[in-house]
Amino acid sequence: MPAKVDMDKIVSLCKRRGFIFPSSEIYGGLGSCWDYGPMGAELKRNVKDAWWKAVIHERDDVVGLDTSIMMHPGVWVASGHVDGFTDPLVDCKSCRLRWRADELETQKCPKCGGELTEPRLFNLMFRTFMGPVEEEASTVYLRPETAQGIFVNFENVVTTSRKKLPLGIAQIGKSFRNEITTGNFIFRTREFEQMELEYFVKPGTDQQWLDYWVQERFNWYVKLGIREENLRLRQHGKDELAHYAKDCYDIDYLFPMGWSELEGIADRGDFDLTQHAKASGKELTYYDAEANEKYVPYVIEPSGGVDRSVLAFLIDAYEEEEIEGEKRTVLHLNPALAPIKVAVLPLSRNEKLTPLAKEVNKRLCSSFVTDYDDSQSIGRRYRRQDEIGTPFCVTVDFESLEDNQVTIRDRDSLAQIRVPIEDLNTILEAKLKGEAFDASSLWATRQK
Amino acid sequence: MPAKVDMDKIVSLCKRRGFIFPSSEIYGGLGSCWDYGPMGAELKRNVKDAWWKAVIHERDDVVGLDTSIMMHPGVWVASGHVDGFTDPLVDCKSCRLRWRADELETQKCPKCGGELTEPRLFNLMFRTFMGPVEEEASTVYLRPETAQGIFVNFENVVTTSRKKLPLGIAQIGKSFRNEITTGNFIFRTREFEQMELEYFVKPGTDQQWLDYWVQERFNWYVKLGIREENLRLRQHGKDELAHYAKDCYDIDYLFPMGWSELEGIADRGDFDLTQHAKASGKELTYYDAEANEKYVPYVIEPSGGVDRSVLAFLIDAYEEEEIEGEKRTVLHLNPALAPIKVAVLPLSRNEKLTPLAKEVNKRLCSSFVTDYDDSQSIGRRYRRQDEIGTPFCVTVDFESLEDNQVTIRDRDSLAQIRVPIEDLNTILEAKLKGEAFDASSLWATRQK
Repeated sequence: MPAKVDMDKIVSLCKRRGFIFPSSEIYGGLGSCWDYGPMGAELKRNVKDAWWKAVIHERDDVVGLDTSIMMHPGVWVASGHVDGFTDPLVDCKSCRLRWRADELETQKCPKCGGELTEPRLFNLMFRTFMGPVEEEASTVYLRPETAQGIFVNFENVVTTSRKKLPLGIAQIGKSFRNEITTGNFIFRTREFEQMELEYFVKPGTDQQWLDYWVQERFNWYVKLGIREENLRLRQHGKDELAHYAKDCYDIDYLFPMGWSELEGIADRGDFDLTQHAKASGKELTYYDAEANEKYVPYVIEPSGGVDRSVLAFLIDAYEEEEIEGEKRTVLHLNPALAPIKVAVLPLSRNEKLTPLAKEVNKRLCSSFVTDYDDSQSIGRRYRRQDEIGTPFCVTVDFESLEDNQVTIRDRDSLAQIRVPIEDLNTILEAKLKGEAFDASSLWATRQK
Repeated sequence: MPAKVDMDKIVSLCKRRGFIFPSSEIYGGLGSCWDYGPMGAELKRNVKDAWWKAVIHERDDVVGLDTSIMMHPGVWVASGHVDGFTDPLVDCKSCRLRWRADELETQKCPKCGGELTEPRLFNLMFRTFMGPVEEEASTVYLRPETAQGIFVNFENVVTTSRKKLPLGIAQIGKSFRNEITTGNFIFRTREFEQMELEYFVKPGTDQQWLDYWVQERFNWYVKLGIREENLRLRQHGKDELAHYAKDCYDIDYLFPMGWSELEGIADRGDFDLTQHAKASGKELTYYDAEANEKYVPYVIEPSGGVDRSVLAFLIDAYEEEEIEGEKRTVLHLNPALAPIKVAVLPLSRNEKLTPLAKEVNKRLCSSFVTDYDDSQSIGRRYRRQDEIGTPFCVTVDFESLEDNQVTIRDRDSLAQIRVPIEDLNTILEAKLKGEAFDASSLWATRQK
């Protein structure tokens, strides 16, 4: 088992290689906001695409949706967020610092030992004002979750998609929570991205679908490269369940700070549709033609965080090893997630090599995401590609000018093979798509 | 030339077929906010992917980025948005309605004829409060454009990407503007999505790069199916140029309400990097190793709207025609943009046909986005697929049970061919990818 990586190393790699930068860094940053750099933007896209493909495109019982961040304020009254989405806060009477009462272990201020006020409830939704006058009537909230955008569109989607239950509606998008306690890099931030599926089922079949989705979602992380031993399933205790949930499981990952939630899968019963039907006056039911009955569907909700998934994939792929006396840092990312699939590296920046290397890059770049890099020594360029998790490097050398062959270097095994340029696309396609990436056997081999 | 479609028909198709719904519709909607339904979410994804592929993946001089919506407030001071991003507003002293002074043609309220107040400047940025106290110190803005996220990351990206100038940095994301005058469906909304490229060049080469990008972006729309006669290029007059722009072109599309901007391509000179260098105290320059000189790059900015592109693609693809006495509405979308690539339609819902049709769908759905539909008559299902722009329908009939062949129906020509199921993937792949979609020749044929 490789040694656990600490968060600082991940943060440092992310900064150094263009995965993630502190937001507005030249202005000193903005609390808990992060920007995805060139590599991070690609990795995050790949994670979202893999989810969209698995949850929507490869199934015929789930459709996608993309709803707006600003919604009618009535949505958040009905969902319970206006009244209930709060943290209890206390102020220190001496130093004025503010704390979450439910996270304090003492009665005195942890900073200065001062006396604390009584807890006050603080709503976590960001408020803003739509229209030119800042008055109560035009207050809107930035959505604290994408789920409600799905519930309020239930009727529209069922009518237009002509699908029968069970039917899933899924979306990916930004949500905002004005958290007091942020941290652990991109694990908990005020602006974040969610991947949420609401899977509507006939009441009474919800338990079986909950079990199904718990397994399905767990397998998704494993299939994309996270080792099973770093994942666990945890059922919520009765006292821990949210007011809307009949049952709930967390998929936890063993982050550097300990086991923490990657995704929650909840049985929300008919809470949401019932609430919105009451508040809006619209009937939100489903007519089951086969059984000739009408009911309010129950819903199973697998709700994952994009940013924390990205973080887990980075951490789980990270390895430092020594090769011929030199330290190598490598990300063993699943090729489907790797920001760059193929790097094209001329041995040196040379007027003879450059045209051929550019031609090779041109052949590849319409089929694969490539990176053309001709600066600094080939050793340094290999190290860079290893650190950003590029599965294959294609090296163009002086022999290539003679024999029209190039070398493919494998990120994980470091094996090199020489292949004709004209077969390159076919060979790389087979390597990237044909062979399933198996994280557990990869890591088993590396522990020998 | 087919008759121009009016906006109502597009809005109606979008609602009826699940492209676009009014946001929070069951609560009466929220001013100018729209939700993308199952078909719209796919179409919008395809537009964004086509842009990302053309602007980033198929080039070696542009990298992607994904920055946060909330940024340090100092960014918006430096960019000029805090002081200058304003509309002049007047109130009616009688009926209290508020108007944009620069859009009024009279001195009296257009609604009641009442007297108007003097104009006041109103900032278009949405404000919110980060942290638990609503005080000035924690005011943050929702970004009114994605561009600034690129400028403040210039140094980080140049350092980590090891690229030389000219270098482009591109991103797609939500922006927010508290517009008084919204409308024309998804053309002008308060929450919208942008596709922006900042292409950094050596000063003095900016004019040639401006010309290059104007052409490149114009061609992108044409390649994806918009007819050239519905596009025009318009150079901004000197009096019309924004304060930061040296020169600017709009790519306009002939929308139902008239020629309106799809995308602007501006030469912003060194305005942004200079402003941020001044405000942040960081040096934002580029060292050109070959010329051994240091300078502040100039930047060319092609800035497009995702939502208005989606709208233009929908409008330009729309046709109503009569076929054998029946009206048919069809979207001639480029297959790359079509939400569904292949529909799998059993002739009827039948216990013998269903297993074979499901098997055919399963074969296809890992390579293409498919839709399995077995409800209602085959005629109605064809009409639905035509209206959502599905290029190919695969029909499974009773003969298929005997001969293992199915029928492929072409959306545009309505031609039907019968092919063996085992060749289906190869044939469809060739049809979808191999043949370039040529909108002008398609429409030329249809006018005969």
